[in-house]
Amino acid sequence: MPAPRQISIAVIGAGGVGKCFLSQLSQLASTLSRSSSIPTYLSLILLSTSKKSVHYADYKAISDWQSELQSSSSSPLSPKDLADYLSKAPGKPILVDNTSNQSIADSYPIFLENGVSIVTPNKKAFSSTYKLWTQIFAAAANGTGTGGYIFHESSVGAGLPVISTLKDLVETGDEIRRIEGVFSGTMSFLFNSFQPTSGGGGKFSAEVKTAKEKGFTEPDPRDDLNGLDVARKLTILARLAGLKIDSPTSFPVQSLIPKELENVGSGDEFLERLPEFDDRMEELKQGAEKEGKVVRFVGAVDVVKGEAKVGLEKFDKSHPIAALKGSDNIIAFYTKRYGDNPLIIQGAGAGGEVTAMGVTADLVKVIRLLQ
Amino acid sequence: MPAPRQISIAVIGAGGVGKCFLSQLSQLASTLSRSSSIPTYLSLILLSTSKKSVHYADYKAISDWQSELQSSSSSPLSPKDLADYLSKAPGKPILVDNTSNQSIADSYPIFLENGVSIVTPNKKAFSSTYKLWTQIFAAAANGTGTGGYIFHESSVGAGLPVISTLKDLVETGDEIRRIEGVFSGTMSFLFNSFQPTSGGGGKFSAEVKTAKEKGFTEPDPRDDLNGLDVARKLTILARLAGLKIDSPTSFPVQSLIPKELENVGSGDEFLERLPEFDDRMEELKQGAEKEGKVVRFVGAVDVVKGEAKVGLEKFDKSHPIAALKGSDNIIAFYTKRYGDNPLIIQGAGAGGEVTAMGVTADLVKVIRLLQ
Repeated sequence: MPAPRQISIAVIGAGGVGKCFLSQLSQLASTLSRSSSIPTYLSLILLSTSKKSVHYADYKAISDWQSELQSSSSSPLSPKDLADYLSKAPGKPILVDNTSNQSIADSYPIFLENGVSIVTPNKKAFSSTYKLWTQIFAAAANGTGTGGYIFHESSVGAGLPVISTLKDLVETGDEIRRIEGVFSGTMSFLFNSFQPTSGGGGKFSAEVKTAKEKGFTEPDPRDDLNGLDVARKLTILARLAGLKIDSPTSFPVQSLIPKELENVGSGDEFLERLPEFDDRMEELKQGAEKEGKVVRFVGAVDVVKGEAKVGLEKFDKSHPIAALKGSDNIIAFYTKRYGDNPLIIQGAGAGGEVTAMGVTADLVKVIRLLQ
Repeated sequence: MPAPRQISIAVIGAGGVGKCFLSQLSQLASTLSRSSSIPTYLSLILLSTSKKSVHYADYKAISDWQSELQSSSSSPLSPKDLADYLSKAPGKPILVDNTSNQSIADSYPIFLENGVSIVTPNKKAFSSTYKLWTQIFAAAANGTGTGGYIFHESSVGAGLPVISTLKDLVETGDEIRRIEGVFSGTMSFLFNSFQPTSGGGGKFSAEVKTAKEKGFTEPDPRDDLNGLDVARKLTILARLAGLKIDSPTSFPVQSLIPKELENVGSGDEFLERLPEFDDRMEELKQGAEKEGKVVRFVGAVDVVKGEAKVGLEKFDKSHPIAALKGSDNIIAFYTKRYGDNPLIIQGAGAGGEVTAMGVTADLVKVIRLLQ
């Protein structure tokens, strides 16, 4: 019987995704410790938010974390100190970054070079400068390096198998020609309500308000409406498909924030004044309606031409993008092997549980590779 | 710099999928040998069909295989001898089974116990007796054993990420409630032509003939129309979701072969007499049409009730299953986390290149795990 394996895990972030992840981690730890082939012990050795941090000397029941974090008086470690701490951990070290923090993302190469593996839904590391992208995959064992592994399924489409599928297509020698879809749960909900294929739908500003009330937008809805979230996801997919995209602002991205409201003080003031601009969106809606089409906010990468684009487009009502429901994402891969009918992946692309699921699935993959 | 890795590969089967796989393998071998982190050398040490076999003492350019196989005078090894040969190979051994052979499938436990990993699109191993299923995963390192790894993505939906997604859902603790879809490229093509959502479509027997002429059916179309291929795929998914399905004939499977034609001698005679029974299918079509629906051949697993079922069902014209195109497959996973809107995967579910792609992607995963 082989010796049991020991894995040391540090988790940063305990927000919506972080909470769900910790619950899934607790269940996974219990399953793996009872494995009949090679028992694996997952030790949570550190848990930290932007304000507080808890260190665990020994394995702890992961369910206790909330009260312990509350009563902790330790500040979080700097990324460099955290990398150092993890690389000296007793078991093989994994960092789970459940934040959307840029400075942690900037430090990924240091973690990887020190043999720390990373799983994360944080888009920032993969959609900022091309230089950071190169540094990360030059260090990673699943890039061209010999450091830790890095997996980031949930950085696009939450738990949907988008990144793993694209990697499989590329690694087995398929030619990616075009990737297109609805990459934002917020934008999906907004346009499926604004212009349902069955007709009707409210004014644009009213739908933005409803989306915010239902918790489908960021605290300031402009952070969704500026298109940057979609541009970041598209940057990641375009780079995986082989394009050297400089940054998420290096290609055309249509913002749905009226120029006049870009600089108003608060999200609330923005929402109050948005109705003044409803006519513009209404005109687009009616124009599409006359052609038997609907308006949707999509992203597309034309890999052959080397171009990416984010913004509004019109789709036939029978098109899968038009027929999307709720806040679902849809991603279509057009490739040489799949021909005219793309490989399509569809489903919830946001939400704590499904985002955490992508992180947990990545964690399982890294644990298998670390054996 | 770590030492280069050596992998020994035996490939059985050189038909439609086998040919495409060998071409993808050749490209993969070239990429991996140039890897800048850990170079990996893939050696094809044996290639065999049901009639002939070629052994390679050393690494060979994989492109030469066709003429060498033709001029070989060696017979194929028995599964037991092949397992023995592979377990003594210089590098870590992988068997790629591109056949649909039951007796090779029956021997998988022997290969796995001898430390040989397996990648395969062969449905037989996973959809025959539950006993064989149990033996395979009791031996495999990615089951509860300590032998070789086994991956079979292409046994359902060809290269579509169906099995890997279902495994991720289960391993991360989601509850699978229902799986439904169109699992056969042949049945998809047949019903999309027989009753398009836009109306029209030919007589059923005429569509079967067209499908056969286009190469979308088995040589004897009854091997598609009996529903067994779909039942096998559903058996695999149901078992992965946790149901103990005895065999693909232990749940209701509707055959589209008229009782009267079950025992006619040849596929040609069957096709000649099929028009006599067109009225029955026409009646179903008209019945569905009256309700604004279309008829499709689907499979469904109700995991909660522990039931599986294969056969004809009616769908609203706006339903994703009704709107399918060409010979595409669609698979919908209803789970606790995904709620009412399922996780959907759609695209070509048959064809040499996409099936081989699933096999090659599995091979890459096994190679990473064998490092």
